[in-house]
Amino acid sequence: MQPLRDSSATLAAEMASLGRAARAAQAVVAESPVEQRNSALFRASTALRDGISALLEANSTDLAAARVTPAMADRLRLDESRILAMAAGLEAIAALPDPLGRVLARWSRPNGLEITRISVPLGVIGVIYEARPNVTADAGALCLKAGNATILRPGSESFRSSSAILSAIHQGLTSSGLPSTAIQMVPTRDRAAVGIMLAMDDAIDVIVPRGGKSLVARVQAEARVPVLAHLDGNCHVYVDGGADLAMAVRIAFNAKLRRTGVCGAAETLLLDRRLSADAMRAVIGPLLGAACELRGDPAIRALDARVRPAAPADWDIEYLDAILAVGVVDGVEGAIAHIARHGSHHTDAIVTENAAAAERFLAAVDSAIVLHNASTQFADGGEFGMGAEIGIATGRLHARGPVGVEQLTTFKYVVRGDGQVRP
Amino acid sequence: MQPLRDSSATLAAEMASLGRAARAAQAVVAESPVEQRNSALFRASTALRDGISALLEANSTDLAAARVTPAMADRLRLDESRILAMAAGLEAIAALPDPLGRVLARWSRPNGLEITRISVPLGVIGVIYEARPNVTADAGALCLKAGNATILRPGSESFRSSSAILSAIHQGLTSSGLPSTAIQMVPTRDRAAVGIMLAMDDAIDVIVPRGGKSLVARVQAEARVPVLAHLDGNCHVYVDGGADLAMAVRIAFNAKLRRTGVCGAAETLLLDRRLSADAMRAVIGPLLGAACELRGDPAIRALDARVRPAAPADWDIEYLDAILAVGVVDGVEGAIAHIARHGSHHTDAIVTENAAAAERFLAAVDSAIVLHNASTQFADGGEFGMGAEIGIATGRLHARGPVGVEQLTTFKYVVRGDGQVRP
Repeated sequence: MQPLRDSSATLAAEMASLGRAARAAQAVVAESPVEQRNSALFRASTALRDGISALLEANSTDLAAARVTPAMADRLRLDESRILAMAAGLEAIAALPDPLGRVLARWSRPNGLEITRISVPLGVIGVIYEARPNVTADAGALCLKAGNATILRPGSESFRSSSAILSAIHQGLTSSGLPSTAIQMVPTRDRAAVGIMLAMDDAIDVIVPRGGKSLVARVQAEARVPVLAHLDGNCHVYVDGGADLAMAVRIAFNAKLRRTGVCGAAETLLLDRRLSADAMRAVIGPLLGAACELRGDPAIRALDARVRPAAPADWDIEYLDAILAVGVVDGVEGAIAHIARHGSHHTDAIVTENAAAAERFLAAVDSAIVLHNASTQFADGGEFGMGAEIGIATGRLHARGPVGVEQLTTFKYVVRGDGQVRP
Repeated sequence: MQPLRDSSATLAAEMASLGRAARAAQAVVAESPVEQRNSALFRASTALRDGISALLEANSTDLAAARVTPAMADRLRLDESRILAMAAGLEAIAALPDPLGRVLARWSRPNGLEITRISVPLGVIGVIYEARPNVTADAGALCLKAGNATILRPGSESFRSSSAILSAIHQGLTSSGLPSTAIQMVPTRDRAAVGIMLAMDDAIDVIVPRGGKSLVARVQAEARVPVLAHLDGNCHVYVDGGADLAMAVRIAFNAKLRRTGVCGAAETLLLDRRLSADAMRAVIGPLLGAACELRGDPAIRALDARVRPAAPADWDIEYLDAILAVGVVDGVEGAIAHIARHGSHHTDAIVTENAAAAERFLAAVDSAIVLHNASTQFADGGEFGMGAEIGIATGRLHARGPVGVEQLTTFKYVVRGDGQVRP
């Protein structure tokens, strides 16, 4: 009798082989001139445009096979304009300056040693994502630009679409003389592959999860590899007593409703107790008028009958929907205390004309991004001028805020001497 | 009948309480002016000097109780000069520039938003160490200078000495108006406390292990909290065919023998096959003459009968002793390949007058520190001009190389607008 095929051992061996190939490719990509990396991105963009019909066919098969919600199907669906946007994204990343070899610092020592701190690639990056097939192109391209190798693990429902996109990227890599193993995809839908990736701390230097809260939570809980991610974007807008009221109305509305599903969308509005009832009504009125559900504390509920009562949990929820918790706080110190207790260290804004209150808020709120007189929806690598981002990080180490190509690098010290020995 | 006291639940509760206190203290320290942090360090230094006799007594009790090797006893032992050096170390850290509030980058966007990247504290730092009681002062002071709170876990054998040092530090903190909980010590020798610390990812932002390889390996294997550390310092000196021979002799000797127990000590010497037998003998002769054990490949053994045979494992060992693996490689590419296979990404040096070979080595060797014509023993925060270091990191994220006060900070983005909303 034949022994049963040990599929978990086979998967482990496949993943280990993927890891070795990534490490080898990374050494090549790390030393490749930026022209070569850019050429791969341009050629991948061309291959994507040339392969639209094959890609649409793969995507149709994915869609037909997927048992997903309408929202997930929308994320999974590709059309010509989405594919062209993906191709344009590759070219935009190619147009960014080379993030490698930058001199980050340089100084000399009294003994004549000259020390330079130089940007180098982060290494091998694992990207774990869900339905959106465009992450295959975006994440792979950002990592490549920064000299990294990438191991992609798309959601099983977008497996065929992601494979088709990867094939275009591979055309770009190989026709530019770079190894196709610089950007690899886990070759199976088996969910056990995610667990293996999270434990591959020899082969993978950092994991970037792209997806919903349950994916990020699983990655953060299980990973043996460092993770760049944010779990929650519980962003706050605080309207100070010293605010320009018209500006406060505009910013609160935009921060909540421009797009409700993005991580920089405001989830809690804090109003200074010093604001008049009319001023408070002016801020919440347009939100209510736009059918945004407000969940308020007693003081806010007293302003308008349409405000529903906020439960204690409402201060901690990232709704990602047209729902907003609204509370009254005692000035900037009250806002700082509220955010320290309920915030997620992502993005928080103060609206005020009072410079001292603004500086106090900007200094004391311990978040990756703090804003004065601007909407929290600016929490985005593109809006920061980084060109593109692989995500937003709320951890404290290495990268905080938008993670663009610069944040996908690390550094080394190069020390030049003329024979120095240490006394 | 009374239930048994659940000591593990008690310990967990104590540790959680320590964590909460650290988080609260960290918010205070983060916003304290640098003068106040420096004052605490100066006053702690004075308290250390004033408390020498009590500290020596605590240390004697530790020494009497310890069942340790002579080497460990030496690390544990304090005397007046070691205490004065510790006190001077606190003052040196006070004299460093403030690492907080530095503007790391600043740019404007076309919409008028002004974005500033500013250094802020890392948060709560856990330091796990062994016999050396001076880590209590050094690590606590570095973390405090960078606005962090610290939870210290000294080795059980130095518990009384570390407590006495901490009491001097607490005098400095409280007499300067800072909370004594800014620097806390795990209040028990129970080894289970280490396991709890490693899992306290809500309360502790980063763990720094200071000690031998078994400690670092345990921390890296178990930690749920990010770790800044190096496991191995398998440092290489490569003598290129184009080297100035006298310089190569001096650097190889210094890199191995200045101090053999430091992580920047060379453990492998690589000689270019193009060097003549006489040149090779000139390099290894002084090492053999100084009773350094050489373990060589056949080509090296052919040079001198005193060279012992190198086993395959010798290329991977961090001896931390007067032992050196010596091998012949094919030029700079051979050296790069050898280091890629056996190195620990810590510190590696090339000796050559050939500028192209030097640049190739500096670019291709993927280590935190790469040197040209200088000894690997310069791998040290003090030698880098950082004033002091809490350790050397070989991970790729956040900090690589010496970890000084700057590396104990992170950053946030401060965005200033005048009412911008996102279109």
